[in-house]
Amino acid sequence: MPKSLVYYFGGGHADGGKDDKLLLGGKGANLAEMTRIGIPVPPGFTITTENCKLYLSQGGYAQGLKEQVADAIKRLEKDTGKVFGGSENPLLVSVRSGAPASMPGMMDTILNLGLNDRTVQVLAKNSGNERFAWDSYRRFAQMYGDVVLLVPPTKHEKLLDECKEKRGVAADTGLTTEDLKELVREFKALAQANTGKPFPEEPVEQLWGAVEAVFRSWNNERAIAYRRVNRIPESWGTAVNVQAMAYGNMGDDSGTGVAFTRNPATGENKFFGEFLVNAQGEDVVAGIRTPLHIDEMAGALPAAYQELLKQQNVLERHYRDMQDLEFTVERGRLYILQTRNGKRTAQASVRIAAEMVDEGLITEQEAVLRVDPKQVDQLLHPRLDPNAKATVIGKGLPASPGAAAGKVVFDPAKAVAMSELGEAVILVRRETSPDDFSGMVAAKAIVTARGGMTSHAAVVARGMGKCCVAGATDLVVEEDEGVVRYEGGELHEGDWITVDGGAGVVYAGKVATVAPELSTQFKRIMDWADKFRQLGVRTNADTPADAAKAREFGAEGIGLTRTEHMFFEGNRIQAMREMILAENVEERKVALAKLLPMQRADFLGIFKAMDGLPVTIRLLDPPLHEFLPHPDEVDSYSKAAGVDPVLVRRAIDKHHEANPMLGHRGCRLGMTFPEITEMQAQAIFEAAIEATKEGATVFPEVMVPLIADIRELERQTALIHKVADTVQKKAGRKLDYKVGTMIELPRAALTAGQIAKEAQFFSFGTNDLTQTTYGLSRDDAGKFLPFYVEQGIFPDDPFQTLDPIGVGRLIEIATREGRATRPDLKVGICGEHGGDPRSVEFCHEVGLNYVSCSPFRVPIARLAAAQAALKGPKGARLAVASETPEVATAGAAGIPLGE
Amino acid sequence: MPKSLVYYFGGGHADGGKDDKLLLGGKGANLAEMTRIGIPVPPGFTITTENCKLYLSQGGYAQGLKEQVADAIKRLEKDTGKVFGGSENPLLVSVRSGAPASMPGMMDTILNLGLNDRTVQVLAKNSGNERFAWDSYRRFAQMYGDVVLLVPPTKHEKLLDECKEKRGVAADTGLTTEDLKELVREFKALAQANTGKPFPEEPVEQLWGAVEAVFRSWNNERAIAYRRVNRIPESWGTAVNVQAMAYGNMGDDSGTGVAFTRNPATGENKFFGEFLVNAQGEDVVAGIRTPLHIDEMAGALPAAYQELLKQQNVLERHYRDMQDLEFTVERGRLYILQTRNGKRTAQASVRIAAEMVDEGLITEQEAVLRVDPKQVDQLLHPRLDPNAKATVIGKGLPASPGAAAGKVVFDPAKAVAMSELGEAVILVRRETSPDDFSGMVAAKAIVTARGGMTSHAAVVARGMGKCCVAGATDLVVEEDEGVVRYEGGELHEGDWITVDGGAGVVYAGKVATVAPELSTQFKRIMDWADKFRQLGVRTNADTPADAAKAREFGAEGIGLTRTEHMFFEGNRIQAMREMILAENVEERKVALAKLLPMQRADFLGIFKAMDGLPVTIRLLDPPLHEFLPHPDEVDSYSKAAGVDPVLVRRAIDKHHEANPMLGHRGCRLGMTFPEITEMQAQAIFEAAIEATKEGATVFPEVMVPLIADIRELERQTALIHKVADTVQKKAGRKLDYKVGTMIELPRAALTAGQIAKEAQFFSFGTNDLTQTTYGLSRDDAGKFLPFYVEQGIFPDDPFQTLDPIGVGRLIEIATREGRATRPDLKVGICGEHGGDPRSVEFCHEVGLNYVSCSPFRVPIARLAAAQAALKGPKGARLAVASETPEVATAGAAGIPLGE
Repeated sequence: MPKSLVYYFGGGHADGGKDDKLLLGGKGANLAEMTRIGIPVPPGFTITTENCKLYLSQGGYAQGLKEQVADAIKRLEKDTGKVFGGSENPLLVSVRSGAPASMPGMMDTILNLGLNDRTVQVLAKNSGNERFAWDSYRRFAQMYGDVVLLVPPTKHEKLLDECKEKRGVAADTGLTTEDLKELVREFKALAQANTGKPFPEEPVEQLWGAVEAVFRSWNNERAIAYRRVNRIPESWGTAVNVQAMAYGNMGDDSGTGVAFTRNPATGENKFFGEFLVNAQGEDVVAGIRTPLHIDEMAGALPAAYQELLKQQNVLERHYRDMQDLEFTVERGRLYILQTRNGKRTAQASVRIAAEMVDEGLITEQEAVLRVDPKQVDQLLHPRLDPNAKATVIGKGLPASPGAAAGKVVFDPAKAVAMSELGEAVILVRRETSPDDFSGMVAAKAIVTARGGMTSHAAVVARGMGKCCVAGATDLVVEEDEGVVRYEGGELHEGDWITVDGGAGVVYAGKVATVAPELSTQFKRIMDWADKFRQLGVRTNADTPADAAKAREFGAEGIGLTRTEHMFFEGNRIQAMREMILAENVEERKVALAKLLPMQRADFLGIFKAMDGLPVTIRLLDPPLHEFLPHPDEVDSYSKAAGVDPVLVRRAIDKHHEANPMLGHRGCRLGMTFPEITEMQAQAIFEAAIEATKEGATVFPEVMVPLIADIRELERQTALIHKVADTVQKKAGRKLDYKVGTMIELPRAALTAGQIAKEAQFFSFGTNDLTQTTYGLSRDDAGKFLPFYVEQGIFPDDPFQTLDPIGVGRLIEIATREGRATRPDLKVGICGEHGGDPRSVEFCHEVGLNYVSCSPFRVPIARLAAAQAALKGPKGARLAVASETPEVATAGAAGIPLGE
Repeated sequence: MPKSLVYYFGGGHADGGKDDKLLLGGKGANLAEMTRIGIPVPPGFTITTENCKLYLSQGGYAQGLKEQVADAIKRLEKDTGKVFGGSENPLLVSVRSGAPASMPGMMDTILNLGLNDRTVQVLAKNSGNERFAWDSYRRFAQMYGDVVLLVPPTKHEKLLDECKEKRGVAADTGLTTEDLKELVREFKALAQANTGKPFPEEPVEQLWGAVEAVFRSWNNERAIAYRRVNRIPESWGTAVNVQAMAYGNMGDDSGTGVAFTRNPATGENKFFGEFLVNAQGEDVVAGIRTPLHIDEMAGALPAAYQELLKQQNVLERHYRDMQDLEFTVERGRLYILQTRNGKRTAQASVRIAAEMVDEGLITEQEAVLRVDPKQVDQLLHPRLDPNAKATVIGKGLPASPGAAAGKVVFDPAKAVAMSELGEAVILVRRETSPDDFSGMVAAKAIVTARGGMTSHAAVVARGMGKCCVAGATDLVVEEDEGVVRYEGGELHEGDWITVDGGAGVVYAGKVATVAPELSTQFKRIMDWADKFRQLGVRTNADTPADAAKAREFGAEGIGLTRTEHMFFEGNRIQAMREMILAENVEERKVALAKLLPMQRADFLGIFKAMDGLPVTIRLLDPPLHEFLPHPDEVDSYSKAAGVDPVLVRRAIDKHHEANPMLGHRGCRLGMTFPEITEMQAQAIFEAAIEATKEGATVFPEVMVPLIADIRELERQTALIHKVADTVQKKAGRKLDYKVGTMIELPRAALTAGQIAKEAQFFSFGTNDLTQTTYGLSRDDAGKFLPFYVEQGIFPDDPFQTLDPIGVGRLIEIATREGRATRPDLKVGICGEHGGDPRSVEFCHEVGLNYVSCSPFRVPIARLAAAQAALKGPKGARLAVASETPEVATAGAAGIPLGE
């Protein structure tokens, strides 16, 4: 029996179910699932993703597809009692894309398919509503022309606008049946002019054109861009859902809406949504008419509302997650058109997960998996300072919480360009469309003048955790003129505004912000996360304040203290420069002696802040030239410091390097100037002794940077242990300290088995390791790296997300071989990847002991570590037979299936 | 039975033999071997290297050593009929170091041990030569005081000089017996003053002091420096050889000498050497008296001479290699004190190896193994232009051939310092001593005023393949004054001289040189090498002239043509700059169109020069800023080129990079400016078509640089194949071309399994791969890399000799995994390591297809490849179970055992 190419649903039965998302797409699987569990869904069928793949790769249809579709149509005719192209009761259908992963608005949809000059008459007669029939026909001709026949959409819009102008009306609803008939004629003429063929009248021909268009739409630009950002594999393809139409525009007993089983912004367990009377679904999503609150449906469509309340509850309990529904009421009868797990803000995500545990709906483990670590960032970041004085310039819907300031930009492409230059921009639009996606990604916040809480802008912004004010009707956005007018003023491109997405308010200028408070529910989720995770989470902190902040966020120690930042503060830089300008060891020692007490004081503060937890301190790392004055400042510096400017210039020359990243830095400084290592070790151990005396428990971990060869580490550790011995003897106390190394050069990773003989711990410096593994300087990559990421040449920016097959392979090698030499070797990472969820997952898989990241990323790492632990065992990557060449590229594991 | 700690030799029997070098040292093993085969060797015994290791690690002697030495002394007393410390016929012995590898003069020697105030009388009586007895005693007291009791040697010298002055004589021979007695008293008083204890009288006590001193001498500074340069493991230790003395200073029927079984400078099969009548061996080696030619021994000591001729022949045939002998004639009786494979010049090495094949003494394989590839360099490098006008300032012995010019330096330490600054220096010394070793390494040539062909300077210089003129008595070298005076002038430190080591002439100033001619014997050796080697040898060449030169030297194709060098020539740089200054694709294409014909012409010339052989052309690699004018030259350039200087400055700013090595270069240029790749591909393929039309057979290999990810290569290869198709179609001819990539980033090596899907060949760019693997910029390493190499932190300069465990491991991974994807993948290297013998051996072991190196290094690579093939199977490293962590550091494999 040939594999089924078409899955039917309807009449209480469905061929597929919710587990068939890869084959039926999220939407198709859910339509089947809903049908199975008795939800009122218009019947229909799904053409599987396999057909799309075949079409895109070979340009044709699978054998038997035409026949299976014909059979499905017959069954649909039977279930609806209608006939496709029939003269008595014509069957009209929607044709929608539906990919395995949610891609809202990215691909194409056709409604009212099956209408033609003949069936429109029957529809008019049967519905007793000629205007409805012709409005449907007008919509169909417009969509079909746009999506299938590739008529430029502006041409339709222009005809529509001209018609409204002629009629003197503002809204489509003001058009008469005759206007609509005229528009249909004009649209069809446009199509003929564009394709050279008449507009297809035959419903089956219409259907295949639509199916093909949906397949093609998988590869449209916005879909490709969306997939790239969301790491959805190109190979998945989309299914096509063909479903009997339900009409929300059949009069005042009809309507359509979008609803969430809980509040997607706050998480409150209260049915939430919007609807429009006498409208089709696209009207709600496009944000063209501002819809009514769902509560008002109780008055407008009481029976359907009660049914909806019941069904939404069935759906949420069935799917065990907050659902995002689309529904239509056709002459009082409710149809659920679609359900999917609803996108939500971080706050909502946390609250819903925690409350569902309380309701017994999900387990703690599931709750932890429900919160997207990337979103957690929103909860931790500053909000507008309530005491800041700020001028409100507009109010709208609180579409996605958070606060951000940036420069006004109207054009999405401009937003991308300015953001690439490092500018904070806020995209201000009349309304957004899927074409604006890249611009929305680039913007810090989004403001629209039109649209509701479920408008495109609102949905997409919430999904990205980006703050958004939608429907800010006070603002008159003149995109073409590049101006936004408000009561009492106007702003131009480049002017600063501040957006409070939680309150739905837009302010002029840059407004001050304050730190967020963390909810109890958030704390509960994090406690559960800590219970499940197996990976330690430390922080990168250079000051006692940062250390304390990180501890508050749950850091279990410091994974990286950069000592060089300390050298820049205040007049310390003077002592540092004296050290660099020293002509011999003696002079250098004099300068180092001045730095010693400063370093000691810094370390003391940090040890105390991290009482009871380990503190890893990295020895001096950057090349010395970084501490010297800029060539232009030599004279002023020399005068102030009383140094011969010739000496300073000579030092600048001497320390100049062609490639400082690969130069005299890291342990190479300590190798050639052992007195620097000695001073730093002395400062660390004396501070540790002092902290102990003051009652703190300290676990200093001295970390030697940029080791390429075991012999470097041998010499540096010998020096450090010698200083430790001296300090301990003098104090008459023992310290529980370790000496280890950064693994940040490929050679260190490749010879880790040797290096572990000397190192008591490894910490992967993934920033430098990525730079050397790729031969790519972060400072210089700006000229091509954005292009590479945009073009998909690199699947991710390797400085943001750890490259698993190159850099990651080195981490695997080093971890495996380091532990082979020293089974109790402590291994962590301290690059910026330590706070990136996918990188944290990698660290779990490779069996590291901990990740270390900036304080604000600590909760993200804790959550990501817990999720990784719930997904698979720690160290699974190391268990794989050693060194089989990895053929998989950055895979699609972990992409949530949806829609 | 406990392991023997002492090996006896004498009376025609020996406990050990020539295969026991690790245990007995080279000298001990050869003394044993010689004894076994009936060579007249004074009897004695060897204290094994195990004892030295134990002494150095634990500070004491092995259990049983004292007893075994006592037994050996008894046996020695029996074999010699003498008694150690005896009152009738006292046994006197020499105590010498002897390591497994030859370390000439690096460690200590004591002669005449066993003499004391009592035995000296007996010796005087028995020999009937009181002066000889006291001279021996004086020598012993001096050496023992110096070596064992650590009296500063200058103190002995001072007393000796004072004595000679008082006596009014120039040479030691002018001193009377009474003088010698006085000196012994004074030397012993010096020793007592220095140690606080009387000079040891008891022979057994003397012996243990000497043994201990030899052990200690393993770790003296010059020994450590020598081992580092020669890669001799610290762990080997030295043996101690205790041997009955043979006296060459017992009158005019006695003598001592050093001889080679063939001429070590030319290789001529003629007995060669020098001797002194009535002298001890140290007199010859130290170069204090200028010795006589060995032929003159026939007259002076006829019987011993005949015996020597016979024995040298026995030795050479036994050892199947040219021998370096030390002999002593005691009252007419010949003793061979030592034999070892003789050091020789490259010319001699080649001639001896080839002639020994003709003589049936060795096989062709052995002949190939006998020539040190590093020495081959000497044969290929320029010699003095015979037509150059040059002022001779001195003549001496042609101690080591070759020619070099450099600045005069007198102080070895200064030679090291200046050489590190990149200066060519020539070390000019009265005579050299082992303490001068580092300075000799640093110098381009060595000139001594005293000493013969077997003096320290001559032996060491030949070993290093460094040119040397010894015994240039015309020169008065005043080291302290920093001046060398010659007939008609004087030179000071820093003045240029030129040395012709083959002629033994020193010239003033810099003298022109000419290319060498290669001997027939050399060609034979190279033919044999080609027969045995399994690794291809290509060349790196950017011009037709270089290509032709390399082909002459045996290159089998081009492994690397750098296209960027072509862009610097003449007015091409103008077109290149236009290309860089272009504001858009169109402007860039206009500039590229100007470069196209120039590139095409270059490639055509190279293809024709390499007719029938593959030519690998690398696409543009360096960052664009390298082609822009220096900031100081902007104005003059702008004026000349008629360009707005503002544009030029903006371009310089735009292309400035913090770390250009890791910046916008390599394929990243071709990715962002595909038109550059297109132009270069077009030039290559059009030139290939043209060369074909002109009758040449071409195999172009287009090489994409700096690939980090398969996707880069996918895009670049697609472009290149497209251009190839167009060019081939237009010409109506097919080209046999390949597209491949450099593997020069760790990530490329780590993902080679993927990259091989696109690449038809890999070429390891080991310069960049070393830089990124070590995180070490070659340009900036000068501040610490020499220190690292000197201190043994890096066993070798990784830019000279391929790092086997880091960079090499990446090469192994990439080769293994690349071939797993594409079994016929061609893999080579084109970094500078391609001409380094040890790196070539690595490439053989890892199973590469070829190495590519600069033209002059091609013969070296051919020879090294043959030796590698004779040592072990190709690809042996890949056969090792994949990815076992390598614990061995750069081992001692391949260090010739000797002495």
